[in-house]
Amino acid sequence: MRVLGIDPGLTRCGMGVVEGEVGRPLTLKDVGVIRTTSTLAVPDRLVTIEKGIDAWIDEHRPDAVAVERIFARSDVSTIMGTAQASGLAMVCAARRGIPVALHTPSEVKAAVSGNGRADKAQVGAMVTRILRLDAMPKPADAADALALAITHIWRGGAQARIEAAQAAALAAAGRNR
Amino acid sequence: MRVLGIDPGLTRCGMGVVEGEVGRPLTLKDVGVIRTTSTLAVPDRLVTIEKGIDAWIDEHRPDAVAVERIFARSDVSTIMGTAQASGLAMVCAARRGIPVALHTPSEVKAAVSGNGRADKAQVGAMVTRILRLDAMPKPADAADALALAITHIWRGGAQARIEAAQAAALAAAGRNR
Repeated sequence: MRVLGIDPGLTRCGMGVVEGEVGRPLTLKDVGVIRTTSTLAVPDRLVTIEKGIDAWIDEHRPDAVAVERIFARSDVSTIMGTAQASGLAMVCAARRGIPVALHTPSEVKAAVSGNGRADKAQVGAMVTRILRLDAMPKPADAADALALAITHIWRGGAQARIEAAQAAALAAAGRNR
Repeated sequence: MRVLGIDPGLTRCGMGVVEGEVGRPLTLKDVGVIRTTSTLAVPDRLVTIEKGIDAWIDEHRPDAVAVERIFARSDVSTIMGTAQASGLAMVCAARRGIPVALHTPSEVKAAVSGNGRADKAQVGAMVTRILRLDAMPKPADAADALALAITHIWRGGAQARIEAAQAAALAAAGRNR
């Protein structure tokens, strides 16, 4: 399967495409960052991000899109832009019918490094090894996007199956109410 | 001028269209709510909201879109969905070249009621009077969307002009760096 990982952000949106299956070597297909400048108004920055994500999806036609699950944390100054970029990532995939999965930062860290509290350098080093790259992908947002895609492949879509089952159960409960 | 006010939310996105100018009676053109059910996955809910906003813009062809400015507040459970819906509102307008303005809740309350700490009932009552309606628009999200549109008309696009000037100054500074 081919997975597009997206590490959402208003200034830098990390994008990484990985292909492969559980138990077999994974392959890097593409990696990069969609950047927007803070001199633009936020609506225009969001349009740039949306166009960028659309272009990545159209070029790579992923089987699934894996997006970092955002929490309302202490970093209040950037949370709004991050949330808005993550919403666009979900919409760009969902309107094409591509399954979207959300993975938390600690799930991603645990999946690629075995340690849910690994730092950026450890995650980057593991991504480099797993994909057999000559150098660590930069910036960190790009490496994080690849880590998301790897996590999604290795979790074997378990999360997506659980969420589909939950949604079906909730929908059934709603109909019977 | 015709303004579409949007009170963003994942469960209920308030939509209100008001036409008029400063110093003249304002007219309600349309009001309503885009709803999505929590039994759907978030990506699908966001797609529903995007389609709904697109349809409102295409039908009413507003000169400007006024969106509530969201802050990362204490209400952590709903902030992510609200942020994502507000991002979609901005994108839907910006990709058609329609100016987007953000107004804070206290700016809206102050504009329609003269009191930046007015409660929902007071805002709703003032919206009803300003637009000469027979009854208060419901739910509160719909009244809030109308209040946003009224605020935008009454502020006379001052905010949009300030932001355009700031963006131009920042862009010039960026070029000279």
